[in-house]
Amino acid sequence: MKIVLDAMGGDHGPKVTVKGAVDAVNQYGVNLILTGDKKTLDSELKKFQYPKEKIEIVHTSEIVENEDKPVAAIRKKKDSSMVVALNIVKDGRADAIISAGNTGALLAGGLFVLGRIEGIDRPALAPVIPNYKGASVLIDGGANTDIKARNYIEFGIMGSIYAEMVLGIKTPRVCLVNIGIEEGKGNESTKEAYKICKKAPFNFQGNVEARDIPSGYTDVILCDGFTGNVILKLTEGVAMMIFKVLKEELTKNPLRKLGALLIKSGLMGFKKRFDYTEYGGAPFLGVQGALVKAHGSSDAKAIMNAIRQAKTLVENQVVKKIEEEIKNLGADIVE
Amino acid sequence: MKIVLDAMGGDHGPKVTVKGAVDAVNQYGVNLILTGDKKTLDSELKKFQYPKEKIEIVHTSEIVENEDKPVAAIRKKKDSSMVVALNIVKDGRADAIISAGNTGALLAGGLFVLGRIEGIDRPALAPVIPNYKGASVLIDGGANTDIKARNYIEFGIMGSIYAEMVLGIKTPRVCLVNIGIEEGKGNESTKEAYKICKKAPFNFQGNVEARDIPSGYTDVILCDGFTGNVILKLTEGVAMMIFKVLKEELTKNPLRKLGALLIKSGLMGFKKRFDYTEYGGAPFLGVQGALVKAHGSSDAKAIMNAIRQAKTLVENQVVKKIEEEIKNLGADIVE
Repeated sequence: MKIVLDAMGGDHGPKVTVKGAVDAVNQYGVNLILTGDKKTLDSELKKFQYPKEKIEIVHTSEIVENEDKPVAAIRKKKDSSMVVALNIVKDGRADAIISAGNTGALLAGGLFVLGRIEGIDRPALAPVIPNYKGASVLIDGGANTDIKARNYIEFGIMGSIYAEMVLGIKTPRVCLVNIGIEEGKGNESTKEAYKICKKAPFNFQGNVEARDIPSGYTDVILCDGFTGNVILKLTEGVAMMIFKVLKEELTKNPLRKLGALLIKSGLMGFKKRFDYTEYGGAPFLGVQGALVKAHGSSDAKAIMNAIRQAKTLVENQVVKKIEEEIKNLGADIVE
Repeated sequence: MKIVLDAMGGDHGPKVTVKGAVDAVNQYGVNLILTGDKKTLDSELKKFQYPKEKIEIVHTSEIVENEDKPVAAIRKKKDSSMVVALNIVKDGRADAIISAGNTGALLAGGLFVLGRIEGIDRPALAPVIPNYKGASVLIDGGANTDIKARNYIEFGIMGSIYAEMVLGIKTPRVCLVNIGIEEGKGNESTKEAYKICKKAPFNFQGNVEARDIPSGYTDVILCDGFTGNVILKLTEGVAMMIFKVLKEELTKNPLRKLGALLIKSGLMGFKKRFDYTEYGGAPFLGVQGALVKAHGSSDAKAIMNAIRQAKTLVENQVVKKIEEEIKNLGADIVE
């Protein structure tokens, strides 16, 4: 197996991508290709010990910046670390790609360079988010803001396959995010979605209210990309705010500081459960290839975990499984 | 000033509504009318000390249940504690109404019994949610799932007036919930809303991503009712889940228990900042009267705070201010 990493992507660039790559090689024994400026990558790689034959560099002269317009960037920056990495997968020289770069450009690249799986109308982002019991797959995490009812079926199928692969859940529960649990609740889009999902070939369990998402009520959180983006970012925002307030309260006076010291291991375990870097990135499911979008602010650990995640996608043949499931889908459901 | 309370509404009924009413009378000196079963209310009232002339009971024989269809309940249950309370406001015998009962029915009652303010197409729920700096007003909190761009203008106007009244913020910042901060981001609805909001007579500050809502980036969180419902319930759900995990971690062994004891006051202060009962209920803005929806699971403190909130709405003439602002709105903006 070979995985290609856009080593120039992300807010911290090669400083963290290279360390993440080396750690992944040492920990998981994967073979990597790094795309990016050869001189920069060589000088970063020199800092570490690892089996040299496991990391190859493909030099590129351009970078897709966060400010770049997605589609234009993919079309014009042919020698960027991102576009070259996508082409390496397209040409079969690697099995998976990871990038922490411009999200819009990466998704556009996934669609234009790799292409859709036949039968998939809307590929979707599927981040894993922590909950009380463990974690759930959120789909769509932000790729498609305005969708048709049939897209929910695709999302449900892809989300179920992924939840089974990465979370190890047999016949995962799939619930539609809605403003009430009864059928008939919601906006036009979710009302339609509910009707069509009842006939879908996944374990549809009706609606879930946002309040019950963090408790782990559903394994697959089904929604359009606008709602998914709100869920993903709000969960992160509320958790960050609570940690901040907690830290302030616990350092207000010497007595509390002592108390905080005694519960330190508890607080660490607590924080770890909500640490996005543990979960790697979000796969872009529905394209012809294993594509993982790592968080823009990824540190080396997040990059390493995203590489592990890409490895899992390839080993479990997620792309092939999606292809098969979609092929088996009766036309009566989606029309 | 006189405020009417639907004393049969809410998950806990008269047991908490009556105590909340008595506490509000003793604390704020308000005059109350309680609608509900006279015998039940009398026997609850007997348990407390309060100036008898300040609480009047209007006997009703029916109850709107949570399972009732909203519109049908309002039409058919003419002698329910909710409908009678609404009519008391409509007839001018009270200045404000509070209910913790069936949300859909209460909103339908607001529309049909009290009626809309002229110029307001869609009255909206405006709950206050805690953030790092204090609190923000969320509008629409769940009354309208599918809306037109012009409705965002109404929400922004009403939310600004309310934020100024209840949070005491001069020219509050109003931001549109979206999936990116730049203009042009979003779904069809938010893209349209952005354009129209730029011309609106409130302090529009562009988009806010869900991640920045908990930090207090905006005073008024502007969105459709579907998104608002997700934000409201997810914020609550994430906070509840985190408190639960924290509690587990802090009671795992004797050392941690000791530590937890030392930081107890800190934890209490921490928890209080996220306590919805502190904020009362959500006003339904845009109808002809001060209407406060209290949380279904309200305890006596939440009811008391909802009464205080209704008093604030009346004292600050929020209904009249909305009427005036809407009247001044240029036709060029809303068409």
